[in-house]
Amino acid sequence: MTTEEAIERLYALQKKLSAYSHAMGLLNYDGVTTAPKGTAANRGETMGVLSEELYRLTTGPDTVELLEFLAGQRESLGQKDRRIVYLMLKDIRRMQAIPMEEYIAYQMLLVEADDVWHKAKEQNDWPAFRPYLERIFDTARRFAGYCNPEKDPYDYWLNEFEEGIDQKSCDSFFSALRERIIPLLRRVLEKPQLSDSAVLGSFPAADQERFSLELMELIGLDLDHVGLSVTEHPFTTSLGSHLDERITTHYHEDNFTKSMFSVIHEGGHALYDTGSAPELARTVLDCGVSMGIHESQSRFFENFLGRSRAFCSYILPVARRYFPEQLAQATPEALYRAVNRAQPGPVRIEADELTYPLHIMIRYELEKQVMSGALAVAELPEAWNRLYKKYLGVDVPDDRHGVLQDSHWAGGLIGYFPSYALGSAYGAQYLRRMRESVDVDGCLAKGDFGPIDAWLRERIWRFGCLYTPGELFRNAVGEDFDPNVFTDYLEQKYTELYGL
Amino acid sequence: MTTEEAIERLYALQKKLSAYSHAMGLLNYDGVTTAPKGTAANRGETMGVLSEELYRLTTGPDTVELLEFLAGQRESLGQKDRRIVYLMLKDIRRMQAIPMEEYIAYQMLLVEADDVWHKAKEQNDWPAFRPYLERIFDTARRFAGYCNPEKDPYDYWLNEFEEGIDQKSCDSFFSALRERIIPLLRRVLEKPQLSDSAVLGSFPAADQERFSLELMELIGLDLDHVGLSVTEHPFTTSLGSHLDERITTHYHEDNFTKSMFSVIHEGGHALYDTGSAPELARTVLDCGVSMGIHESQSRFFENFLGRSRAFCSYILPVARRYFPEQLAQATPEALYRAVNRAQPGPVRIEADELTYPLHIMIRYELEKQVMSGALAVAELPEAWNRLYKKYLGVDVPDDRHGVLQDSHWAGGLIGYFPSYALGSAYGAQYLRRMRESVDVDGCLAKGDFGPIDAWLRERIWRFGCLYTPGELFRNAVGEDFDPNVFTDYLEQKYTELYGL
Repeated sequence: MTTEEAIERLYALQKKLSAYSHAMGLLNYDGVTTAPKGTAANRGETMGVLSEELYRLTTGPDTVELLEFLAGQRESLGQKDRRIVYLMLKDIRRMQAIPMEEYIAYQMLLVEADDVWHKAKEQNDWPAFRPYLERIFDTARRFAGYCNPEKDPYDYWLNEFEEGIDQKSCDSFFSALRERIIPLLRRVLEKPQLSDSAVLGSFPAADQERFSLELMELIGLDLDHVGLSVTEHPFTTSLGSHLDERITTHYHEDNFTKSMFSVIHEGGHALYDTGSAPELARTVLDCGVSMGIHESQSRFFENFLGRSRAFCSYILPVARRYFPEQLAQATPEALYRAVNRAQPGPVRIEADELTYPLHIMIRYELEKQVMSGALAVAELPEAWNRLYKKYLGVDVPDDRHGVLQDSHWAGGLIGYFPSYALGSAYGAQYLRRMRESVDVDGCLAKGDFGPIDAWLRERIWRFGCLYTPGELFRNAVGEDFDPNVFTDYLEQKYTELYGL
Repeated sequence: MTTEEAIERLYALQKKLSAYSHAMGLLNYDGVTTAPKGTAANRGETMGVLSEELYRLTTGPDTVELLEFLAGQRESLGQKDRRIVYLMLKDIRRMQAIPMEEYIAYQMLLVEADDVWHKAKEQNDWPAFRPYLERIFDTARRFAGYCNPEKDPYDYWLNEFEEGIDQKSCDSFFSALRERIIPLLRRVLEKPQLSDSAVLGSFPAADQERFSLELMELIGLDLDHVGLSVTEHPFTTSLGSHLDERITTHYHEDNFTKSMFSVIHEGGHALYDTGSAPELARTVLDCGVSMGIHESQSRFFENFLGRSRAFCSYILPVARRYFPEQLAQATPEALYRAVNRAQPGPVRIEADELTYPLHIMIRYELEKQVMSGALAVAELPEAWNRLYKKYLGVDVPDDRHGVLQDSHWAGGLIGYFPSYALGSAYGAQYLRRMRESVDVDGCLAKGDFGPIDAWLRERIWRFGCLYTPGELFRNAVGEDFDPNVFTDYLEQKYTELYGL
């Protein structure tokens, strides 16, 4: 096999992988958007066949041989091919390190755990979920040991979800947030609460849907390649390549801004995905490089842009075309204040821009302690509630609104949460750097996302997975990550908003 | 390999085939319901990979060897397994008879032809489509010769779409229709036209959708396993097995009965599919046995049941719950008359119950002549228009509403049309036989489809592809097919309706 032939086979293999992930992605998407509710088992049968084939294609002997051959030719490969081989081999090495029967048992545990978690949340039944979570944390520790015995298990998982981070960097990140956000929040809460009456009313879903499509075009999405559907929990997915992207939202008829910010948030994810360079299509590089960078795009659009005064002034008259009576009295300033209320509560997904990072910090601290053995899973609810009281001043009413609220742990995603907060924080540095060449507020005030999107496309979107998150970030902003830029931004915004 | 092992492999293979056809069916379904409009090429890439794999699974050497081994053990197989082996080998034999390069060239021709046909129809441009249709008819003749050199080519294709029929049986079928329907239609047209004003008005799509869901449940569909979407052209599809079925409709806001009958028609297809015995799931027997039998279910629900006086009396008050003002003045009798107007027109898919078979007959006569060489493709438009004048008294305004109206020929479906008329005719014998044990009108008048569905499930639905269409039909009604039962039904219905 010549290197050239091997490269050809590598791309043919990636085309196959894309096709299978397209089919499986669509099956999932159909399941949460359109499929009749009794069809999950039937879909599961098909998923079983396709995932077996995908597994064979990803880790089969032909694939391993091909990738090892190419890894041996490393020096003669271009950067793109080198990265493809590295990423594909990394997955294989992980699969090889974990004994097959343990891997399969874990997949089955997760399917069961997700089901148990759903019911436990519904019925506020922590004891039902606890044994599953114990086994999940145990497995996370054990698997980390198989994959990288020298590394601390929690460090292993943090780095899996956001290449380059560990407990040391997370500790320093969260302590920087804690030191600034907690006192800031305390001062905010001493002031009278902002009113959100400007955004309340009765907003029919059909009108919100038409408004959503205009919003999507406004922020720069190409509706020929990005679709909108309705689901219980909003999400974004690519199907086959970045040429077919789907976002979803959920309409709350009493408040049009909830879906508006969902659409802008998911739209940020979709801009990142669809902004991938055309030549990355049908390769393993055709996706966001990490959860943190992905979230940095969605939260940048949602918060730094969407919850800005300039954008509020532009979007109100647009929204009024869809809701003329409901918004007859609203002013841009009232809208701006309504969508920036800082209000500590027990539920992460309902949190505002200021308190959100504290929700993440609590999860990080708890994961860290459970992974190290300092805290038992059985002690989690009490520890959870204690930290909510300590950092947010919130009394958690029950486990449904506490330790059982998120699906992540039930899905085995230990070490995943910090990327949410990192994503929020990255955005502050994009904004500071972007302002050097783009009149961001001027653009937002006239609803012109062109220069903003161009800046992000040039520095972030087009690269897909070509660089590590750290490389990509530093290339984009020309400096190291510094959480103080984010806390400065928050302090300035909330000081002005609340007249501190 | 023991027979037992071979059977096990046969079922594992069918599970794989179901998974691929699920994925490919869902990709198609997504394409016409939800996908953004610029995503076809991306979907095509995925379809290419999956269809190559499906082709390999269906016709690869392992599969051929397995099926030939089992065919050799024919006598020791149960009826179900024998039928599975027979149907799977039949497809393989056809594939083997056609030279691969000609088969691939034909598939590519069809993709192009479909595209050309769409544009030609839009632009009323017959000359653009003509050369494609010439090549399609040529190929149909040539392929029939490869597959069965002793058989007349058109007989070959008729039998492919509806096992057991040929030109001789079709000639006698259509002549029976012609001799009764044409004079009946002439008498109808001498009478004053029925009014359809009772069903006209303004019917919002959202209300029609809620009405559609009630209709689906009413006729006996299980909404946990049957979904409803909107498309340009209504259709029905099974995904993976009969446990996930989708129907689509198209809402005309000026007339609620158009979508109502679409839903009942597609619902009939879906009842047949989902009525398959549980143990047929994930086998090649898990679908309707032929187009004719499938259409006999959909048209039975749409016309024999849905356009009956008894059903109109039941459904009007139901519809009025969704459209109280629009239907305030309507009476059951006015509804019955409105949905049974016989009105010759140039377009098949808008035809009523009485004239519909004549549209099919025209296509049959033309296909027969082109296949035999008696008529050149170039002469089709003129011949088409002449037959519309002769049988329906209709002047075809242009080729868009004439020879270019249907997609079937562009898709290579030569010999497919007769099954539509056969499907209509089969229903009359179901109804006559069903009345012996079920009070059909009594059931319809109270909206109770239970006994009707039970009759059909017991005699037709549960068998999937286990029997040939002819066996299935005779088992169900206990007699041979007789088109006079259908023409008697039409004569009685229209004589009464129009007071002939």
